[in-house]
Amino acid sequence: MTSTRATLMQVAERAGVSLASTSRALHGTGASKAMVERVRAAAAELGYSADAIGRSLRMKKTSQIAFAVADIGNPVYVEMMRGIHEVLAPHGYRVVVMTTGDTATSATELVRSLNSGFVDGMILIPLRTDDRLITEIRRAPVPVVVIGRALSEHGVSSVSTDSAAGIGQAVRHVRSRGRRRIGFLNGPLDTTPGAARQRGFDAAVRADGFTADRVETEVADDFTVAAGLAAARRLFSRGAGRAERLDAVVAANDLLAIGAIRAAREAGLSVPDDVAVTGMDDTELGRVFLPSLTSVSLGSAERGHAAAGLMLGLTDDPDQPARQVAVGPELIARESTADGSPR
Amino acid sequence: MTSTRATLMQVAERAGVSLASTSRALHGTGASKAMVERVRAAAAELGYSADAIGRSLRMKKTSQIAFAVADIGNPVYVEMMRGIHEVLAPHGYRVVVMTTGDTATSATELVRSLNSGFVDGMILIPLRTDDRLITEIRRAPVPVVVIGRALSEHGVSSVSTDSAAGIGQAVRHVRSRGRRRIGFLNGPLDTTPGAARQRGFDAAVRADGFTADRVETEVADDFTVAAGLAAARRLFSRGAGRAERLDAVVAANDLLAIGAIRAAREAGLSVPDDVAVTGMDDTELGRVFLPSLTSVSLGSAERGHAAAGLMLGLTDDPDQPARQVAVGPELIARESTADGSPR
Repeated sequence: MTSTRATLMQVAERAGVSLASTSRALHGTGASKAMVERVRAAAAELGYSADAIGRSLRMKKTSQIAFAVADIGNPVYVEMMRGIHEVLAPHGYRVVVMTTGDTATSATELVRSLNSGFVDGMILIPLRTDDRLITEIRRAPVPVVVIGRALSEHGVSSVSTDSAAGIGQAVRHVRSRGRRRIGFLNGPLDTTPGAARQRGFDAAVRADGFTADRVETEVADDFTVAAGLAAARRLFSRGAGRAERLDAVVAANDLLAIGAIRAAREAGLSVPDDVAVTGMDDTELGRVFLPSLTSVSLGSAERGHAAAGLMLGLTDDPDQPARQVAVGPELIARESTADGSPR
Repeated sequence: MTSTRATLMQVAERAGVSLASTSRALHGTGASKAMVERVRAAAAELGYSADAIGRSLRMKKTSQIAFAVADIGNPVYVEMMRGIHEVLAPHGYRVVVMTTGDTATSATELVRSLNSGFVDGMILIPLRTDDRLITEIRRAPVPVVVIGRALSEHGVSSVSTDSAAGIGQAVRHVRSRGRRRIGFLNGPLDTTPGAARQRGFDAAVRADGFTADRVETEVADDFTVAAGLAAARRLFSRGAGRAERLDAVVAANDLLAIGAIRAAREAGLSVPDDVAVTGMDDTELGRVFLPSLTSVSLGSAERGHAAAGLMLGLTDDPDQPARQVAVGPELIARESTADGSPR
């Protein structure tokens, strides 16, 4: 998206008007006819890419922004969607939710489909990212904002969070509640969140001086309750033979944590008395669960707000430089790690 | 949608080809050039509405079908969405999820926005329906299928369920578990589901010979956990003064039921020992909750399948008569109404 930026600035200079006015004139939004003619003339003189003009003229055609998520069943996206809606609705945009599927390839195909012009922009949360996906995002005919890892080096606007630091908060929290043997219940390691959270767990237990015999890691097939339940059963059965049982499970998201609580109950363990459990994402599911779930908030609504803000900037001027926003993690303590006397 | 059907049949007769071929020729899908010319000539001779042809030609333009729901936070829609996706994806359609908002007016505006041509059809679940909404659905330039109450008399294709009968199943279920004083926790009575479920409850307690002193009804402001919690607090506090406490709560959906379980716990009541609780919609939330929630399934995935099937028929031939599909309710017993000795 940055390749035509210098040219847009040159068009503005040649026309003798501001960058914003140039952008508006090329988009055909809110500029006088005289201004449009003046800017187009300057663009023509400079050979400003017809493609870019065409692309600009296509902006604001559909009044729709897509929000593309891997799994519509994950409640973390509900609050993100509401955050996005809050920012975009006053600007006359409807938000439509689409599913990317699990793979980088399926996400790439979805981004490629933007060529059919059904939305004015896309806010994308890819579960897995590869070079082809990034290439397709850069080549997309409408702005794409990524919620996930920072993509500044690729010139893609993104909203990131530090889920590795968030897992560190969860480890320190259960430690502060007197827990000594921690199981880490992660999702697939080849996903963006799975990789980051594994790094965070490894760093936190190292920093905290945990020895290998006091840490177990189990990887679920997916970031779902069912996969979490299956993996947590393995976690508890592996731990069962040891002298000291696991007394805490740090899960990579709320769905996995709910799976862990159900597995604990199956194993006759009480949460939080026998096992403390933490989740991540601070979803409504975790808040209403019994016991209510301690969870690391990654600011779903704020990330939605930030992504929508970046999108508005890009729909206004698609050639503006890529921007990055980072939202920090925050642990919210609830019943699932309540103080008590671990047996 | 039926107003041009006779004419389409006349075009088919005049062209001497089947209705299906006529439809395909006018849609520009899968018909030979000769066939298209023959059918268009017949249409022109008969003065077949240019509007209808225009509408037909617009079909299959976007390869997208909208699924419009009141509240993206309600997990009942997740399985419906998956059901819709399963049927439409093999036909090359993407499903995009949109929110209608709570009111008939906001749903009407969304249906009117179909004029901008961003999707090839819409599957709509309105929380509230009025004449203007039905008029707008009938006038829409692309097929609209309604999941909700049957709309056969309006010539609108719809997938309905019998939630009134479902509430009856819940009442009989808690009766069969020995419960004698039932609280009904409903959502707003001016909504389609709220009105149907109230009718169902009233009929069931009448049929079961309940006297007024053994029934309490409380209406929540919304079909959410938070609204259910607030309303269930009122329900339990009203019942607290009586000689016999409520020993069952029948809730109008799973979210309200979770609110009721939380309110019961606040009041020091155990579920199911002191109070049995039933939900409706059979969501994943209820299935993973502790205690797992007895719930009346209204066949979310099946309704999704059925609605997508009706949509495929209509995108193939928008002038085909409106069709209705009904999916029956089925109670699924889980821990929240487990047998025990009500105290």
